[in-house]
Parts: sequence; structure tokens; C-alpha cells
Amino acid sequence: MSNSTIEIQNYLKKLGEAAVRAERTLARASTAQKNRALLTAARMMKEKESEIIAANGVDVDAAAAKGMSVSMQDRLRLTGKRIDDIAEGLRQVAALPDPVGDVLDGGTRPNGLRIVKTRVPLGVLGIIYEARPNVTADAAALCVKSGNACILRGGKEAINSNEIIARVFRDALAEADLPEDCVRLITDTSRETATEFMKLDGYVDVLIPRGGAGLIQAVLTQATVPVIQTGTGNCHVYVDRAADLQMATKIVINAKTQRPSVCNAMETLLIHAAVAERFLPEIAAELLSRGVELRVCGKCASILAASGYVQTSDGSAAGQFKLADESDWATEYDDLILAVKIVDTLEEAIDHVSRYTTHHSEAIVTSDYNAATDFQLSIDAACVYVNASTRFTDGFEFGLGAEIGISNQKLHTRGPMGLKELTTIKYLINGNGQVRG
Amino acid sequence: MSNSTIEIQNYLKKLGEAAVRAERTLARASTAQKNRALLTAARMMKEKESEIIAANGVDVDAAAAKGMSVSMQDRLRLTGKRIDDIAEGLRQVAALPDPVGDVLDGGTRPNGLRIVKTRVPLGVLGIIYEARPNVTADAAALCVKSGNACILRGGKEAINSNEIIARVFRDALAEADLPEDCVRLITDTSRETATEFMKLDGYVDVLIPRGGAGLIQAVLTQATVPVIQTGTGNCHVYVDRAADLQMATKIVINAKTQRPSVCNAMETLLIHAAVAERFLPEIAAELLSRGVELRVCGKCASILAASGYVQTSDGSAAGQFKLADESDWATEYDDLILAVKIVDTLEEAIDHVSRYTTHHSEAIVTSDYNAATDFQLSIDAACVYVNASTRFTDGFEFGLGAEIGISNQKLHTRGPMGLKELTTIKYLINGNGQVRG
Repeated sequence: MSNSTIEIQNYLKKLGEAAVRAERTLARASTAQKNRALLTAARMMKEKESEIIAANGVDVDAAAAKGMSVSMQDRLRLTGKRIDDIAEGLRQVAALPDPVGDVLDGGTRPNGLRIVKTRVPLGVLGIIYEARPNVTADAAALCVKSGNACILRGGKEAINSNEIIARVFRDALAEADLPEDCVRLITDTSRETATEFMKLDGYVDVLIPRGGAGLIQAVLTQATVPVIQTGTGNCHVYVDRAADLQMATKIVINAKTQRPSVCNAMETLLIHAAVAERFLPEIAAELLSRGVELRVCGKCASILAASGYVQTSDGSAAGQFKLADESDWATEYDDLILAVKIVDTLEEAIDHVSRYTTHHSEAIVTSDYNAATDFQLSIDAACVYVNASTRFTDGFEFGLGAEIGISNQKLHTRGPMGLKELTTIKYLINGNGQVRG
Repeated sequence: MSNSTIEIQNYLKKLGEAAVRAERTLARASTAQKNRALLTAARMMKEKESEIIAANGVDVDAAAAKGMSVSMQDRLRLTGKRIDDIAEGLRQVAALPDPVGDVLDGGTRPNGLRIVKTRVPLGVLGIIYEARPNVTADAAALCVKSGNACILRGGKEAINSNEIIARVFRDALAEADLPEDCVRLITDTSRETATEFMKLDGYVDVLIPRGGAGLIQAVLTQATVPVIQTGTGNCHVYVDRAADLQMATKIVINAKTQRPSVCNAMETLLIHAAVAERFLPEIAAELLSRGVELRVCGKCASILAASGYVQTSDGSAAGQFKLADESDWATEYDDLILAVKIVDTLEEAIDHVSRYTTHHSEAIVTSDYNAATDFQLSIDAACVYVNASTRFTDGFEFGLGAEIGISNQKLHTRGPMGLKELTTIKYLINGNGQVRG
């Protein structure tokens, strides 16, 4: 191990020790005190607006000079309006119920032991995310409200923005008489530091990566700390033979085009053969008119060609489509691209989804009770929809009030993660001298 | 990557594919059908008793020839009585309620979407364990009852025993019209195969190691599949100044000596200074008479010496003790050894426990309401006891009816894991054409 690796580990251990120490106070802090910190942070974000925007400007200028794409620059940029949004987000988290201390279950055992299963914070959360400075405030707020200390590692392009936002948040904690170290930012943005951070066992209880597939994969292969995997969504909509086709049209358009870049957007459309000749040309027109590129199976290609659509090798212009290959069924485009396949039976649809699902969100459109039930019970995913858009998989839409991500692993939790999902359990056991026989 | 690694990966992928396929049927199997498989397996274990004992004899003889310790040989050995216990265990799991399909939460959103949060199997579980053939039947039963397919990798010394037990279990599945591949045993017992097994992402949903600290550490560092960490228990009992000392004596003796080899046994005793002069000599006599070796702090040493006990460098004979060093506070002996420390305050006790806890089971003995509350709320562990022995942390004692292990990580679950803890959630969402605005 090189000297620099040891230095990095020592740096991270120091952060970790501070967070663990702060967590012992935060875990028992009252809801009122945590809310005071959040509301103070909201006020101070606005008070420090010009400084935050100035620091952010340094990041944006440096990123632009390095050739960052305009859309990425946009995600990095903070404005007065966006700082309003950050402050409003903090106030919303303050308004949510505090899950810590909830009693989940309990009872008295035959020997008189009284067991109460309660909700407690997870402890110290590690959050790794990309160059989106609003996540710094957002993640810190969700952690603090749920009684968790956090160590944040944001994208290096946002370092100046993150530093000032974390500073303001830590000042707000201090004003509410909570330890500043409830929120720690890793200011050494090297890749090696990120890798060592994923191995901070004994200090970090859970690691949550928020970002694209590359980040998530890196965390999964390198982390020794337990991870909650979020965000990969190769979502399907299956239009059954018994679908209300008008409803199917609405749902397909919404699931694909309302916000194509997100994980709950549809990536593959499956159509039952019995309705394909009617439905496919119609929906193709709707999708193409919205700029969606179609990558279709052979049967689809025949129907589309018979309806006057033109097969090309790139399929990107209006009135055109291209043939899908095997990789298309497995791809999360996060873009205005849709794979389309005709299936002969419900079973074939279930088989296809089962093979390619990332266990996120899957939907069937049907008026057939048995088809709805079969699909919903057979498909192994966090959220299985009947007659609704996959786009609803979201903490706000589910009524959780906030969201730190959408888990598509099966351990711990699945689907949208709100405050409750940032807790674990603790058994409180009270006796009067019981011993085991 | 070597040819042999690729061969191992292909072998494991085939097992994984078979398990995933079998799981699709098992996840939707009725409780009655799963129970039929378990009861059939119970009957068949007894029918095949002589064959199982013969296969086990091959394992025991080979292990003895290789110099396996007598106590390890005892864990490996099967007898008619132990096969009765295996069969009885299968019947007990059949009698437990099936958690699959439980409705956990739900409601109707303002837009009319009806959301139901249900319990579903985790999927395919990987279980890695040591040379204890009864675990093969036990783990398979818990997995099948909770709707999970499993891939089992037992200690290589038990391979013949495991093969025949898995064979009988698979025959029972077939007789109940369930896929045999719901239970797969890895018959290649090489270390490299175990390592590759920990990386079987996409096939194995969750890995549960059952065994000692070495096995758990190996899994934590090598696995890319999500892991539930079980079993490390550096448990403390703190005897407060306001303790009923008669009760404290009973609890301390029970927590240390009733079964010292298990994870919920006490490893360190903390005593408040105000009661140490009275309590320590008494409890020392009780523990020493039961063969417990004492490793004590300097203050304890003075009190013990004043009471006529003799300090030695090994402290193993009656009437003797030795000085503890720093490593003793962190050691899980799993043996008749106890570290003992005097603390001046409740806060010092909480600090000591917080520093050395493995977050498993911790206890306070006190009649002081505030001390009890403070200890219970401050200590970060799965189970925090007031006036009871730590030995109760157990699936059966908690009324779960069975146990696959005790989680001492915070993700997913904490404490004893029964059937419910082998499930995850699935949201069933029903609409009538809702799209997101």
C-alpha cells in the first residue's frame, strides 16, 4: 500500500470518526431540534445566496473551459430560483414526519420478557453523487431528518459549490445545537479517495450511490461497505390483446416521452400480436411525431412497412424505423429511443420482461382480469403496474414526501426510498431478571 | 482470467440459471404445496436414514484421518437422533405461517392509483456455511417456505453428507410437484468456486454466510452480491450502581456460561465502581468455580487481590486472574473467558460499549429508570436488554419460530432473521389509465 493510500485512509478515518461521534448525538436528537436545523439551513441558504452563486460560478466556468456538455453544465448551475428550490426542499423535509422511534412490532414472551421493535437511524450514511450541487443540500436534509450523520462525496466539478453548501448546512446544525459533523463533505475529490471511501467499514454503515450506471457499477464492484443500489431502470410496457387501445396510447406516450432521461421511463414496448396490426401503426405515428426513434422486431417491421413506414439503418427521421438487435432489449436508453417487440402470448411477454427486467417498474395495459393478475404476480420488480404509466415510481408520487433514490436491489428496501427507508430496527427488551434455560 | 476460472464461472452460471428458473415457479407456489415438500422431505430423511448415516460416515472418517478436532467432528457427525432432529426441524418450518403475500401497507393516491405494498420472496439466496450437514436441510427448508430458491455451499468436509441430504430434499420437491432446482448444492468445493460464487450477480439476489468470523470476513471483502452479515457478537453486560446484585449474578452467569460458544454470549462484564468492591469478589468466585478465565482491568485486579485472588500471567486456574490488555476489550472469545472492567459512571459504560460493540446484544442490570432508559436509547445494537441475559437474542426466543442467522449489519434487517426477514417488498399498483403530468 502506497504512502498516499495510507494518507487517504487516515483522512477518511478522521472524517469517519467525527461522523460516528456526531451520530451519537444526532441519533437521539428530538424532531424539533432536527427541524430547527433544517429550517435554519433553509433561511441561511437564501442569506448566503450571492456567495453560493459566486462559488458555483467558479465551478461552471471551469467545467465549461474543460468542455463539459451544455446539459451537464445546466445540472451544475445554481441560480436564485434554484437556491429557492433548495430552501423549499429543506422546509419540505422539515415538515415530514420523523420516523425515528416508531414502534413497529412487539409483545410479551411467555417468560415475561417484553420486546419492542423500534425504528432507529441507520447510522452514518455515505452518499456518492455526480456534479449536482442541489443533491448536497437534499441528501444532507434527508439524512439529518432521519437521524443519520452523512459523509458526502459529490462530483469533483461541483466542489466549490458543494463546499459552500455544506458549510452553510454545518453552520445551521451548529445554530440548532447539533454537531456540525453530522454532515461531512469529502473535499479531496480524487478517484482513489472515492475508492477508499467505499471501503470505510466500521465508520460508514450504508453507501448510497446516486447517479448513472457507471457510478453504480463502480460502487458495486469496489465497495466493502453495504450498498443500496439505485436507479437502473430497463422498464417495459406490455399492451395486452385485451387492452383499451386509447388508454394504451396515453400510457405509452407518457411512459416514453414525459421525461425520457429518468429511470422510470419506458425503454421497451411489447405488443400482443392480436392488436399489433391496429395499434402499432397508430402508436408509431404518435411516437415519431414526438421525436422518438423506433427500434423494432421483425414482425413489427413487416407491419410498419405495410403501413408506409420506411426501414433505414439509423431510423432517426420521421416516418422511419430500424431493426432492433439483441442488445436493444437490454438497453436503458434514457433517451427518446424505444425498442418495440410483438409477442404472441401473455406468457411470451412475461418471459421477455423476466429476462430483461432490472426489477424497477413494469406495466401491463389490459382489461382482462386474469392477464392483469398473472402479469402482476409473475413479474419480479419493485413496482408492477396495471393500466398506469411506469413514470409514477417516485417518492413524491407514492406519498413518501421525499426521495433519496429508487432501490432496485432486493435487500433492505425496494422502490422509492423516503425517510423510513433510511432507518433500521432496534429491539428494546425489558425483563426482571430473565435468564435462558 | 484462467481457463479454470471460466469453467468455474460457467458451472456456477448454469446452477444460477436453473435456480432462477425454478424460483419463478416457487415464488408463486401455494403455502400448501411448499408445506407438502417440507413434510415429504421430513419423511424421506427418516426413510433414507441409513444411507445418510453411511455417507456421513465417509465424511467423518476422512475428517478424522486429516486430524479434525473432536469437537468439529462432533458437529459434522449425523446419528439417528440427529436425523430425527432434522426431520422435526422440517416439520416445524412447515407449521410456520407463510410470509409471502402479506400486505404491509397501501392506500389510494389523489389521482386514484391504488398502491399495495406486499411481501415477496427475495429470489435466489446463496448460503455459505461450514461443515455442519444439518444446515443443508435447515437452510433449504427456510428458503423454500419463504418462496426462495437457494444455492448452498457447505464446508468441503461435509460434501458426501450434504450431497445426499440435498438429493433427498430435491426428491421431496419433485414429489410435491415443485422444481428440484429450488435447491441446488455446489458440489465443487474448491476455494476458487466459493469465491466466484460470491460474485454471481444477476443470479444470486442475497448471500448469507453462516459461520465464524473468518468466513464472514472473506465474504464481506470478496462478494459483489449483496450480503447479510451474521453472527459476530462482542456482547457486554453492564452492572449498574443501582443493580439488584442477586439478579446481576444470575444474569452474568447465564450470559457467560450457559453456552459460551455462541454469538449472544457475554464477552465483557462492566461493573460500576460503587458496587465493584461488593460484587466483583462474589461474581469472580461464581465464574471461577464454573471454569471461566478472568481477564481484568487494573482496578478489578486491586479488588480481587485484596480479596485473596492471585494474579498470574495465564489466570486459568481456580482462584486466579490475569490482567486484560487492549485487545481483550475487542475480542469475541466464544469460550469460557471473560474480560472484566470497572467503570466510574454510566457514561463511561456507554462509551466503552459504543467503542467495542459489534452491534449485536448488550445489556444493563439496574433498578434506576434513568440509567435503564439512557443505556437502552444510547447503545447502537440490534438488541439492548434491561435486566435480562443477552442469550435471548435468538429466533426461537423471539417467537419467530425459526432462524437462519442473526444479522448484525444494519441494512435490510437486524437481529434474529426468521421467514419474514427472507422476503422483500413489491408494490402492486392498479390504475385506470393514469399518466404523469
